[in-house]
Amino acid sequence: MQSLTVKSRYSTDLVDITREVEGVVKRSRVERGICYIFVPHTTAGVVLNENADPSVRKDIINALERLVPWEGPYTHGEGNAAAHIKAALVGSSQNVPIVKGRLALGTWQGIFLCDFDGPRDRQVMVQPIEAEATDD
Amino acid sequence: MQSLTVKSRYSTDLVDITREVEGVVKRSRVERGICYIFVPHTTAGVVLNENADPSVRKDIINALERLVPWEGPYTHGEGNAAAHIKAALVGSSQNVPIVKGRLALGTWQGIFLCDFDGPRDRQVMVQPIEAEATDD
Amino acid sequence: MQSLTVKSRYSTDLVDITREVEGVVKRSRVERGICYIFVPHTTAGVVLNENADPSVRKDIINALERLVPWEGPYTHGEGNAAAHIKAALVGSSQNVPIVKGRLALGTWQGIFLCDFDGPRDRQVMVQPIEAEATDD
Repeated sequence: MQSLTVKSRYSTDLVDITREVEGVVKRSRVERGICYIFVPHTTAGVVLNENADPSVRKDIINALERLVPWEGPYTHGEGNAAAHIKAALVGSSQNVPIVKGRLALGTWQGIFLCDFDGPRDRQVMVQPIEAEATDD
Repeated sequence: MQSLTVKSRYSTDLVDITREVEGVVKRSRVERGICYIFVPHTTAGVVLNENADPSVRKDIINALERLVPWEGPYTHGEGNAAAHIKAALVGSSQNVPIVKGRLALGTWQGIFLCDFDGPRDRQVMVQPIEAEATDD
Repeated sequence: MQSLTVKSRYSTDLVDITREVEGVVKRSRVERGICYIFVPHTTAGVVLNENADPSVRKDIINALERLVPWEGPYTHGEGNAAAHIKAALVGSSQNVPIVKGRLALGTWQGIFLCDFDGPRDRQVMVQPIEAEATDD
């Protein structure tokens, strides 16, 4: 299990971590299987989406803010309830296929840490998992 | 890693792929573990939900459309920003248990490709992963 | 694959199952890898979020109810369409890292069964999966 430190720059930020995760996969020498990516935080998540046009990232951030406004009728005393709810919607982990020792992402896919209560340093855990060759 | 081609028929479509995934698991001869199902697209996802009553599928599609309308105030120039956001909410992959060489889905569960920007041909990657027997 | 029975107490309930999942991991003697947690239901899910302040759980439940109201314009005849939609948003499974034979959750993270159509007995399947040691 490798641990990466990722810096977010804004209160809500999607940070492209594809290259860092790819580095872990290469060093692991896992040839086929899945790469597990986990965020040990409750106000951050991880998502796969378009890495070509940055406007998609902005649209995702804005849509989540419309669905779960920062200033809502919340009970949590720390003032960041919306960040917890967004993290629950996006999810704490993702898996990406590993084929021939590399991440097998789609053409337009990147891996993004989603910080919903930044800016700050976040931890991302990465674990490549080998799958045995089968009859397929 | 097996690749399936799945045809969606509508602009938004949930396509039942349970049988195709089950076929990959059988051919893999994996007896216990998890079956990883991944969509290498940024405007499509994969979800588990009821396969008995097709109205559930319609309700999921309509609720997502109410939450993330196709015509919103988006910045992405290609006109399909809503599809990217829905894919981020639903997620790009799912895992299903494998028990005794078969998918161990609940009675009412099916596996659905979610196309949010169809109709078109979509790719689904399927990787059964063996878990070692343990003391449990 | 271990099966746990979890009782929910309310129509919508997030039940902390962290300790029960930790017990399965310990008994499995898996030292490093991931712990897969799966709910074989279509109106329940599983989520990771804050286990310290119970008000976060309440905020998540209320926010999901605002996004997907129980009384909506749904077509599913059983009256629980909202529960299906919430389950699709939250997801049917989660993975948690295993490091040195224990769940490697963040300081504030707990594992919660989300029942969206309770109260009732729910099943949770837990499968620890070993990852081979690599060069990292």
